[in-house]
Amino acid sequence: MRAMVLLVGVIFALATSSSGQNAGVAARTTIRKVIEDQQEAWNRQDLEGFMGGYWNSPELTFFSGARESKGWQAALDRYKKNYQGAGHEMGKLEFTNLRIEMLGPESAFVRGEFHLTMSDGKMPHGLFTLIFRKFPAGWKIVHDHSAGE
Amino acid sequence: MRAMVLLVGVIFALATSSSGQNAGVAARTTIRKVIEDQQEAWNRQDLEGFMGGYWNSPELTFFSGARESKGWQAALDRYKKNYQGAGHEMGKLEFTNLRIEMLGPESAFVRGEFHLTMSDGKMPHGLFTLIFRKFPAGWKIVHDHSAGE
Repeated sequence: MRAMVLLVGVIFALATSSSGQNAGVAARTTIRKVIEDQQEAWNRQDLEGFMGGYWNSPELTFFSGARESKGWQAALDRYKKNYQGAGHEMGKLEFTNLRIEMLGPESAFVRGEFHLTMSDGKMPHGLFTLIFRKFPAGWKIVHDHSAGE
Repeated sequence: MRAMVLLVGVIFALATSSSGQNAGVAARTTIRKVIEDQQEAWNRQDLEGFMGGYWNSPELTFFSGARESKGWQAALDRYKKNYQGAGHEMGKLEFTNLRIEMLGPESAFVRGEFHLTMSDGKMPHGLFTLIFRKFPAGWKIVHDHSAGE
């Protein structure tokens, strides 16, 4: 009887651990897709699409170097001004070296690099840390810390 | 009978939700203590003590502006060189505006500001994003993204 209980316990533990791992793999795939979709949206000049990867909330935060800003709408307005305003261009965006790490069933963080290629040959680049949370509408970035050169 | 089952269910849900909230409050208090201990260690020139808040692993990562570095020991060596080497000083460190947010029972992220006051009156400062994980040895920073001015 004890052996049977043990066996059932082990099977249950393996099953839940394996299902947890599968859920993690699936979540990482979904999060990677969110980031790839952002890159594609940027490269077709679609800033609303790009912002679709972010939590649409006044509580969304951005740390850019030593500057802090807040809110989804303000971020969209800032991107429009800085990349689509007169004399500005969006350039070609590429995210590389993505490392997606689960922090729980409904949270994750992502380390990666951004590379912009501008028409004048300049290539601004840098590192980012993203915090993702799972919402009914899907995985969204709730905090973005980016720093470039 | 159905009412009884429902009642038991509601009580269970309230109890677990409340215990989850209490666990979150306790975890945030512990995490705040880790950060305060780091600040105190820095201000008594104790870099090993300061590094006690970080995951002692080669997998620990630091993003400093656009530079990436890895590993606990390398970080300690770097801090020693940059803040205790000839012609360097540690200054007085203060962390402010700490926002500790749980991402699961064993993970959290922290947004905050660092302020250094040097003997020549310079005040380097900036923002940081920290990822914390709970280990058998306690809550430790597994990733630090800091950017200053």
